[in-house]
Amino acid sequence: MAGNSFGQIFKITTFGESHGLGIGVVIDGCPAGLTLDVGKIQLDLNRRKPGQSSITTQRTEEDTVDIISGVFEGKTLGSPIAMLVNNKDHRSSDYDTVKNTYRPSHADFTTEAKYGIRDYRGGGRSSARETIARVASGAIAKQLLATENISIQAYVSQVGDVKCTIPYTLLNLEVAEKNMVRCPDEATAAKMIALIEEVRQDGDSIGGVITCVIKNCPAGLGEPVFDKLHADFAKAMMSINATRAFEIGDGFDAVTMRGSAHNDAFAAHDGKVMTTTNHSAGIQGGISNGMDIYFRVAFKPVATISKQQQTVTIEKEATTLEVIGRHDPCVVPRAVPIVEAMAALVLADHWLRQRCAKL
Amino acid sequence: MAGNSFGQIFKITTFGESHGLGIGVVIDGCPAGLTLDVGKIQLDLNRRKPGQSSITTQRTEEDTVDIISGVFEGKTLGSPIAMLVNNKDHRSSDYDTVKNTYRPSHADFTTEAKYGIRDYRGGGRSSARETIARVASGAIAKQLLATENISIQAYVSQVGDVKCTIPYTLLNLEVAEKNMVRCPDEATAAKMIALIEEVRQDGDSIGGVITCVIKNCPAGLGEPVFDKLHADFAKAMMSINATRAFEIGDGFDAVTMRGSAHNDAFAAHDGKVMTTTNHSAGIQGGISNGMDIYFRVAFKPVATISKQQQTVTIEKEATTLEVIGRHDPCVVPRAVPIVEAMAALVLADHWLRQRCAKL
Amino acid sequence: MAGNSFGQIFKITTFGESHGLGIGVVIDGCPAGLTLDVGKIQLDLNRRKPGQSSITTQRTEEDTVDIISGVFEGKTLGSPIAMLVNNKDHRSSDYDTVKNTYRPSHADFTTEAKYGIRDYRGGGRSSARETIARVASGAIAKQLLATENISIQAYVSQVGDVKCTIPYTLLNLEVAEKNMVRCPDEATAAKMIALIEEVRQDGDSIGGVITCVIKNCPAGLGEPVFDKLHADFAKAMMSINATRAFEIGDGFDAVTMRGSAHNDAFAAHDGKVMTTTNHSAGIQGGISNGMDIYFRVAFKPVATISKQQQTVTIEKEATTLEVIGRHDPCVVPRAVPIVEAMAALVLADHWLRQRCAKL
Amino acid sequence: MAGNSFGQIFKITTFGESHGLGIGVVIDGCPAGLTLDVGKIQLDLNRRKPGQSSITTQRTEEDTVDIISGVFEGKTLGSPIAMLVNNKDHRSSDYDTVKNTYRPSHADFTTEAKYGIRDYRGGGRSSARETIARVASGAIAKQLLATENISIQAYVSQVGDVKCTIPYTLLNLEVAEKNMVRCPDEATAAKMIALIEEVRQDGDSIGGVITCVIKNCPAGLGEPVFDKLHADFAKAMMSINATRAFEIGDGFDAVTMRGSAHNDAFAAHDGKVMTTTNHSAGIQGGISNGMDIYFRVAFKPVATISKQQQTVTIEKEATTLEVIGRHDPCVVPRAVPIVEAMAALVLADHWLRQRCAKL
Repeated sequence: MAGNSFGQIFKITTFGESHGLGIGVVIDGCPAGLTLDVGKIQLDLNRRKPGQSSITTQRTEEDTVDIISGVFEGKTLGSPIAMLVNNKDHRSSDYDTVKNTYRPSHADFTTEAKYGIRDYRGGGRSSARETIARVASGAIAKQLLATENISIQAYVSQVGDVKCTIPYTLLNLEVAEKNMVRCPDEATAAKMIALIEEVRQDGDSIGGVITCVIKNCPAGLGEPVFDKLHADFAKAMMSINATRAFEIGDGFDAVTMRGSAHNDAFAAHDGKVMTTTNHSAGIQGGISNGMDIYFRVAFKPVATISKQQQTVTIEKEATTLEVIGRHDPCVVPRAVPIVEAMAALVLADHWLRQRCAKL
Repeated sequence: MAGNSFGQIFKITTFGESHGLGIGVVIDGCPAGLTLDVGKIQLDLNRRKPGQSSITTQRTEEDTVDIISGVFEGKTLGSPIAMLVNNKDHRSSDYDTVKNTYRPSHADFTTEAKYGIRDYRGGGRSSARETIARVASGAIAKQLLATENISIQAYVSQVGDVKCTIPYTLLNLEVAEKNMVRCPDEATAAKMIALIEEVRQDGDSIGGVITCVIKNCPAGLGEPVFDKLHADFAKAMMSINATRAFEIGDGFDAVTMRGSAHNDAFAAHDGKVMTTTNHSAGIQGGISNGMDIYFRVAFKPVATISKQQQTVTIEKEATTLEVIGRHDPCVVPRAVPIVEAMAALVLADHWLRQRCAKL
Repeated sequence: MAGNSFGQIFKITTFGESHGLGIGVVIDGCPAGLTLDVGKIQLDLNRRKPGQSSITTQRTEEDTVDIISGVFEGKTLGSPIAMLVNNKDHRSSDYDTVKNTYRPSHADFTTEAKYGIRDYRGGGRSSARETIARVASGAIAKQLLATENISIQAYVSQVGDVKCTIPYTLLNLEVAEKNMVRCPDEATAAKMIALIEEVRQDGDSIGGVITCVIKNCPAGLGEPVFDKLHADFAKAMMSINATRAFEIGDGFDAVTMRGSAHNDAFAAHDGKVMTTTNHSAGIQGGISNGMDIYFRVAFKPVATISKQQQTVTIEKEATTLEVIGRHDPCVVPRAVPIVEAMAALVLADHWLRQRCAKL
Repeated sequence: MAGNSFGQIFKITTFGESHGLGIGVVIDGCPAGLTLDVGKIQLDLNRRKPGQSSITTQRTEEDTVDIISGVFEGKTLGSPIAMLVNNKDHRSSDYDTVKNTYRPSHADFTTEAKYGIRDYRGGGRSSARETIARVASGAIAKQLLATENISIQAYVSQVGDVKCTIPYTLLNLEVAEKNMVRCPDEATAAKMIALIEEVRQDGDSIGGVITCVIKNCPAGLGEPVFDKLHADFAKAMMSINATRAFEIGDGFDAVTMRGSAHNDAFAAHDGKVMTTTNHSAGIQGGISNGMDIYFRVAFKPVATISKQQQTVTIEKEATTLEVIGRHDPCVVPRAVPIVEAMAALVLADHWLRQRCAKL
C-alpha cells in the first residue's frame, strides 16, 4: 500500500533515499530467456544523470548500475532482477539549512505530515534520484518490447514558451539525442537552450513539455475498464516528479472538435485494419489498435531555485530560505529517458497481461 | 489482471455488459460501522442517468440500485457491499446493423483484437453504462469521506469553445446543479446549452471540460513515489470513457511559469501550516498538504454520431455506417457525477491507506 | 485487504451474507472464448447444497445460479463473470436466541471484536453459505482446466475414526459420487454413514478428512518462492470453514522417513521425464513435475450442535445456549465439491500465470 | 505474478540466487517511526546460518546484513527498507556435476520445465538460502509486533520418530535456544541430537516438526473469508522449503473428536471474554480471539543426501548421481527462526490490515 511498486505482471519495486547508501529496484515478473544488454541500461542512466551538459545541474553522479540477481550468462532467469546504484556525491552538509525549514513546493512539509519523521538530509523518497530505479528497469522493459519490434521515443517539445510546432510525424526523432535539450528540431532546440541558460543565470527554473511516441504496438493491449492503456500511461507519467498534465492524442484540443472531425475512419490495407487518421492516438476504448501511440506530458518549473523565498520553520515560525546549491534550471532534458522508461514499463506489463486474455 | 478493479484498500470490482442482465459492483474494504444513506446513492445515479434533460440522450433508463449485501440495519458490516442495477431498455435490435461493422472510434475493433469475441449487441464493457457501477460505489466513498468533512464537487467548465473563465474560488459551485449543463456560471451555462442543442440538431457531438474541486482534505494523503495522489487522480479520470487529458493545478500553463512564480510560500496561521498561493493544487510531492485540490479533465466529442461514416466490416471490406439512434451530443453534463465518484474512490482509498503509514 | 478475493489472474471476489438477499461471486480474469456448460456449474452446486441426503442438514435450499454477466452466446467474453444465488430459506427467527449470545467456537465473538458490528441473523460472511460462491466459480475453473485435460477429484477418506486405508491409486474414484458420504470404498462408506447417523442422533458433530487428487497437470505450474503450488493449495484449503490441517504427499508421515527413502528417482519414458515413486506428490520446489498431485484436508467437528453449552452474553455474563435447529452432523460429504473448487481455482490461476513465465 | 512478494500492507519482495552476488529483501509498508534494533536482525540470521553447530551443514556463511534504505537515525522512515546479504562461500565448482543432471526431489527439473533456463551453479531461487531474506524481514516484523507485546516462539517438537510429547503450555520455551536442536525439553533434545548424528554419519537425512506459539495476539486479526488468519499461516509455512504439512490446534486429531468436546466454552474474566479450553488455537472463523495461537509444521527429510541415487540427465538418459558435499542432515534446527519469521510477517500484515476494518 506504500506505493513503491508499479505494474501487475512486469512489476517493479523501487527503494532508496537520495542521501542513503543507494537507489535500487527489483523487477519481479520479467520473463525468463531474455538476452540482456547491460550497456543499454547504463546508456539510459547516462541520459538521465546530472552533470551531463551545461543546462543540467552540475552535480556529478556516476550512477553506475550493478545487477545483483536474476541474470545468468547474459539471460534473464525468470527470477527477480535486482539492480543497485550506489549514492556517491552525498554532500548532506548542503542540506543542513533545511533541516528545520520547509522548502516551498517541496515535499518536506507533506512528508512530515504523512510519516511524522523525515530524512532531512535531502528529499528522501521524493527526490528525483528515485527515478534512477525507473530508468534502469525501464531499460529492461524496452529490451523486452524490442523482441516484438515495439519502439518508444520521447523528446522535448516545449521549454517555457518555446514550442516545437512541427508534428512528430514530420520530424526525425533520432535528432533529439544529438543536442543537449533533446528536441528533434535543431532550430527550436537552440532557442530552448538559450532560454534555459537565461533562466539559470537568473537563479530560477522553467517548465517544459515532453512528447512520447510509440511505434509498432500490436492491437489488443490495454484493458477496457480501469486499466485502459492511456489511463495507465497517465498514471505512469503523473507519478514522475514535477509533472502537471497529461494529454493523449489531441488532448485539450479535442474539446473543441466535433465528433465527425475527431472520429477516425477505418480502412483495410493488405488484410489489416487501419485508421485513415489517428486522433485516437492508437488507443480505442482503452485498447491499442495498432496505430502510433503518442502523448504529451507537462512539467512545472522545478521547486529548487536560488532566489530567496518566504516559508516557515518546523516550529511554525516565519522565515526566509535561500538555497545555495546546484539545481536543474529545467528538468525536461533529463526527464526524456524517464518518460520513455515509464512508458516501457506500462507497455511491457500490458504486453504480458494480454497473454492471458483469451483461451 | 483484467482491470475491472480499482483501489487498494477501498477496492471496487465492477461487472456487467451494456446489454446483459445488469451492471453491478462489489466494494471490498469499506470499513464497518458507516451509516449509509441509500437515497444519496440513487441521487448520484439520477444525476448520471440518460434522459434527464433535453441535452442528454433521450434513452430512458431508470437505473434503480439494489444493495445485495454488506449492509445491515442501515450500517456497513465490513463485508463486501454488492450493488446491482438491472438493464431494462435493451433494444439490442438497434445494434443489429453494427454486428458485422466496426463503428469508427468505438471499441468494436479493439475488443475483437483483444478477445477474439465481442458482444455485438452493444459496447459490452466499453459502454459508458459501466460507469453506473462507479457512481454507485463512489457515492458510498463520498459518505465515508463526509465523516471527515471532506467534500468533492465537480462542474462543467467548458463545452466546445465556450469556457467558464471565472476561477472556481470565485464561483458558487452549488449553482452547477441548478442548470442542465452543470456549469455554475449561469450566463456561460446558457451558451453551453445553446451550443449542445446546435450540435445535436446537426447529428454531431462536441467535447467539454470538467473541473473538480476537493475541500477539507487533510494533509498527508497520497504516497511519495508511484501512487502520488495526483497520479491516482489522473489514472482515475483517464479511465472514464472519452477522456483525453488531465491537468492538476495550472497544468499546461505551469510550463511557461518560472519557479519563483509557481512556488507556493508557506505561512503559519493559528499553528497550522498553509500556503499563501495554491499553484500546487493541494498536493506536494504527491502528498496532500491540506489546501484545496483542483484538477481539470478533458472529454473528446463522443464517437456515436448520426452522420454517415466510412469504415470496414469484420470481413475487412470497406463500407459506410449510419447509426440511427439516440446519443449524447455532449457527454460532460452526465459525466460530472462520474468524475466526482472516481475522485471519491481515490480519496477514500488513500484516506484508509494513511492509517498504516506510521506507528 | 478485506480478503474477499482469491487468485491473481483468474481472480474471484465473493459477496453476500447467509441471511441477506443472496450469495454471489465475480470472476475477473477468465480468458475469453471458453465454451461454458452452465449445467455443470449447477451440478456442483447441487453436490454442495443442504438437504441432499439423510446425513446432511435438512435445511432445503435450492441454490439456483444466475449468470449476470461475462457470457454471451454460450462463451466467455473475457469480461467479469458475475453469478448470483438468491437466499430463500432465511428463517432468521431461528437465530433470535443468539442475537445476544456468542455461540461457542463460532465467529460471533471474533466478528464483533473485529468490526464492532455483527449481522446477528446468522453467520454473516463466516457462514458456510459463502462457499456457494467458491463452488460456482470453481466449476468454471474446472471447465477451463478441462481444455488441457486436467482433472480434479476429491473424496471423503475419513470420518471420525473410520478411515479408508486403500491408497487412491488403487481406488475407482468415480464410485465416490455413488454414495451419500462420497467415499469411493463402499464398505468404508457404509461405516462412515452409520457413524454420522449415530452422531446426529446424539445431537453432536464429528470431523473428517477429504483427499484430493489432480491428474494430468502439466509440469511447470507454481512459483519457486512464496507462491509454491502446494503453499497455494494449503491456503485455499485452510480458508474453507472448519479445516484444521493440510498435508501434501506423505505429510506428517514424511517426518519419520529418511531422505534416501523419500526422494523420488527420475526416469525417462518415451522422452518424457517421470519419477519412479511419487512422494513429492507431483510438486518439486513448489513447481509441478507432471505426476499426480494429491493432498489431504482435515475438518474438525462443526461447531453447531444441539447440546447445551456454556457461554457468555454480549454483556459478558455467563449463560447457557441450546440451539434447536438443523445442522450438518459431519461436514465432509458436502465439502467435497468445495475442496475440488478451491483446487481448481488455484490451478486455473497458476495455469494462466505460467503463460508469462518465459519469453 | 512471479510470486516473490508476500503480504498485503507489510509486504516483502525477496531476490537473489544461491550463487549470485547476494540475497536481499525489500519491505514496503513498514510504518514510519519504529525504532529498529539491527542487532536483533543479525541475531535471527545467526540462528538460521549454516555451520552454527555440529548437527547443521558445515558450510560457513557469515550472512551479515546491510540495511540499504528506509532507516534514518535508528528509526524507520515509512519508505522501503532494503536489506542485502552478500554471498561469499560460493564454491560453485561443487555443483559442476549437476549441471547436466537433475538431482532427485530437487527443483532442477521443474525449474527447467517452467523457465526453459536454470542457474545450474546451485538451487537458484529454490535454494533455502532465499530464506535469509525472510528471516531478516521477519525480524523487523517481530519488532513491530513487540510494540503491542505480541511474542512468537517456535521450537523443534519432533525429529524422525523422536517426539516431545509435553504440551507447550507445560514447557519453558526459553530452553529451546539453549541446545543445538532447539527443543525445549532437554531429555528429548539429547535424543534428537543423537538421531541426527546417526543420520548424518549414514550420509542420509531425516524430517522433523516445528511447533510455533504466539502469545498476546489481540482479538480481531484475520479476515473472515479467504484470508483467514490460519489460512495465511498455512500458506506462509508451506512456502518454506521442505514443508509437507500444517496443523492448527488439534489438527488431524480434531477429526476424531465430537463437536461437544472440541467446542471451546466462553467465559468472562474481569470484563474480558475468554475461552475455558483452546481447541480453537486462538482463531475462530479465521479471526483471532485473544487466546494463544499455536500450530505445527512438518518438514520432510531434505533432498540432498550423500548416497548414490538413480536419475536422468538433461538429455533424458539414465544415470546415477552421488553428491559429495556438505548438507544438513535435518533441517528443523535451522528452520526455527524461519518459521518464526514467516509467522511474524503474517501477523504484522494482519495487524496493519485491522486498522482499516472499522470506521
